[in-house]
Amino acid sequence: MKVYLTRRYRFSASHRLHSDAMSDTENAATYGKCNNPHGHGHNYTVEITVSGSVDEKTGMACNLVDLDDAVHRQILDRFDLQNLNKAAEFAAQVPTTENLCRLIYDILQRTFHHAHLEMVRIEETMLNSFAYAGGEEALR
Amino acid sequence: MKVYLTRRYRFSASHRLHSDAMSDTENAATYGKCNNPHGHGHNYTVEITVSGSVDEKTGMACNLVDLDDAVHRQILDRFDLQNLNKAAEFAAQVPTTENLCRLIYDILQRTFHHAHLEMVRIEETMLNSFAYAGGEEALR
Amino acid sequence: MKVYLTRRYRFSASHRLHSDAMSDTENAATYGKCNNPHGHGHNYTVEITVSGSVDEKTGMACNLVDLDDAVHRQILDRFDLQNLNKAAEFAAQVPTTENLCRLIYDILQRTFHHAHLEMVRIEETMLNSFAYAGGEEALR
Amino acid sequence: MKVYLTRRYRFSASHRLHSDAMSDTENAATYGKCNNPHGHGHNYTVEITVSGSVDEKTGMACNLVDLDDAVHRQILDRFDLQNLNKAAEFAAQVPTTENLCRLIYDILQRTFHHAHLEMVRIEETMLNSFAYAGGEEALR
Amino acid sequence: MKVYLTRRYRFSASHRLHSDAMSDTENAATYGKCNNPHGHGHNYTVEITVSGSVDEKTGMACNLVDLDDAVHRQILDRFDLQNLNKAAEFAAQVPTTENLCRLIYDILQRTFHHAHLEMVRIEETMLNSFAYAGGEEALR
Amino acid sequence: MKVYLTRRYRFSASHRLHSDAMSDTENAATYGKCNNPHGHGHNYTVEITVSGSVDEKTGMACNLVDLDDAVHRQILDRFDLQNLNKAAEFAAQVPTTENLCRLIYDILQRTFHHAHLEMVRIEETMLNSFAYAGGEEALR
Repeated sequence: MKVYLTRRYRFSASHRLHSDAMSDTENAATYGKCNNPHGHGHNYTVEITVSGSVDEKTGMACNLVDLDDAVHRQILDRFDLQNLNKAAEFAAQVPTTENLCRLIYDILQRTFHHAHLEMVRIEETMLNSFAYAGGEEALR
Repeated sequence: MKVYLTRRYRFSASHRLHSDAMSDTENAATYGKCNNPHGHGHNYTVEITVSGSVDEKTGMACNLVDLDDAVHRQILDRFDLQNLNKAAEFAAQVPTTENLCRLIYDILQRTFHHAHLEMVRIEETMLNSFAYAGGEEALR
Repeated sequence: MKVYLTRRYRFSASHRLHSDAMSDTENAATYGKCNNPHGHGHNYTVEITVSGSVDEKTGMACNLVDLDDAVHRQILDRFDLQNLNKAAEFAAQVPTTENLCRLIYDILQRTFHHAHLEMVRIEETMLNSFAYAGGEEALR
Repeated sequence: MKVYLTRRYRFSASHRLHSDAMSDTENAATYGKCNNPHGHGHNYTVEITVSGSVDEKTGMACNLVDLDDAVHRQILDRFDLQNLNKAAEFAAQVPTTENLCRLIYDILQRTFHHAHLEMVRIEETMLNSFAYAGGEEALR
Repeated sequence: MKVYLTRRYRFSASHRLHSDAMSDTENAATYGKCNNPHGHGHNYTVEITVSGSVDEKTGMACNLVDLDDAVHRQILDRFDLQNLNKAAEFAAQVPTTENLCRLIYDILQRTFHHAHLEMVRIEETMLNSFAYAGGEEALR
Repeated sequence: MKVYLTRRYRFSASHRLHSDAMSDTENAATYGKCNNPHGHGHNYTVEITVSGSVDEKTGMACNLVDLDDAVHRQILDRFDLQNLNKAAEFAAQVPTTENLCRLIYDILQRTFHHAHLEMVRIEETMLNSFAYAGGEEALR
């Protein structure tokens, strides 16, 4: 009797794609204009999918108040209107949206326990999105 | 050679979140403003996903005319421009969107046999959606 | 050097279309299913357009913080998750979206003075929207 | 550590639904107005989902430049602003969107090797979409 | 006390851009791939804006039932799932979306009298739209 | 017989809101988190509206190829995937979206002569948009 709940959040941030493990030439070849030294930015849409059985008394799989509280404190307060390259987690990792998906999944996996975390999906632009569903599981 | 077909329908309805199994204080704590006695409402978007093999003669997995017919008669004619709390099925259940997903899935599971029902997904607002894929199966 | 700023807000509410000035038969003929006694509901999207010259120091026509503050206090806190028929202003007026546009325009016209109010536009569903730009002016 | 990347492309084309394996009466009964001899058209949105592990050096599962290059050369250059019934693959098959999904999947399966192809999903209109994930696999 | 009402309709059609007043070379130079002999197609979104004073009894500027009835009979029944080049009005005119806007405006101007016709706007794709507000008036 | 054509373009960029004409305290009070020293970013959607009479031979008010060419060369090539604060025009002006509207309008006004420039509208996020229609004219 598992029901899935997906909630959408938005934040705006800047990033620069540049890997210290590559030469300047390799960086330019890999990231193109996304490697420009002054960075650029996006409006990110983050979709969090959780699942659970429906509580027969409340009719809910998870109270949205709890999910909102966790996402606001753990994710939006840290990343909204920031430069992602300055976040501690991106000191040694390139802030691609692939890595941002994994980071947000890992933060919520550790800190949110009101329902089962299924997937984190991020729309970087209207044309691109990325999804991560944990190490062992298939995308849902 | 299974192909998935998803079709989107819309209806508008009101509901009030209130559980007879809880005290007024618990109801207020659980549902917040959604518990106000006069109710509120939403434009619901319902996505029905069915699957089937492609008929080599017609090139179709399911004729949309058949799906539309079932959804209009079984779902939209009953719920569009109504108060969900007044539906017989919600006499003993809170009309959360979780429960609405399960109800619509069950109705179609019983009455629609032109293709395999995979999932019912409902967008309650631009920020929230809920999905139900039956008792035994994973979300697709 | 006038710049226009449009900001979008959302709220969910229920209403019933019924006019005390008409018989039951006339109400049914005029409003169809929207006249059902238990009401129905919508996710309303409200777009507020204001205009002003750009402040050369700040580069802004109006600080969004001021607009958000006014709209949250005057509009969203009153209408979100409510039944519109219970609002004092709709005791003697039918809560059509035409009338809701005029009401929101009038409230903001009286209470918001950080920029010039140009228009209030409300999307009732993805297919319908209504706009009001005051008594004398053309739609912009 | 598998991450999913979905990229959206758009093209406009015309088609006529008509099967040589059926009589004119059967064609009309099956396809309705979509069977009219002069055809009609759509703006198709194609979503390609691929997956891969994240390269620790680049932070990417797949370089979008490679995916864009393949989709532009293999798909968009062939179908954008064309009549689908004139494509060689639709000489013996009805150009339904089900069949178009399978065709695009098969083309990319054969020609794109920078990441694992997961799914092709096509939105034919805002209300209909179709998805194909290959012969053996479930929809993801 | 004028209120504006905008209602959105959708239809799918094909067209070929080709002008009998130009040579083949000029046609190709002017229309590019849109000149291919077999045509292509679009999902057109048509927005009709009308205005009127709000009836104090009904709270409405125009009953949507009347507008829907006119648009379905005069516009959608004629153009949905058709080839625009086959319409009588496009025998001597190129079926560009500019001309389609003018044609739909003229048809409604002649046949719809329940409110004042303000504008016809057509989205040809997510990136292009065209609007026509009559010969003498500015765009609204 | 004037027809309006609106075309939508997208680019991603970063900016920091900070005015040299104000103290650090005033900057923080005016711009909040948008004043953080490392900047943030957006996906900007730019809508350009031009108008013209319809050429009776081609059926077009303006060839989109000409508009695309101007916008790509003058606007997108300069701003896409860049930091707006580094643009010469924003050396002495804060790169608010109000100022970006005016800048893009001025650039096109000077360089695009295939149709009459009516308006530049920029969506900064899904909730905010700004529009500029030149110094003397009303918004259209």
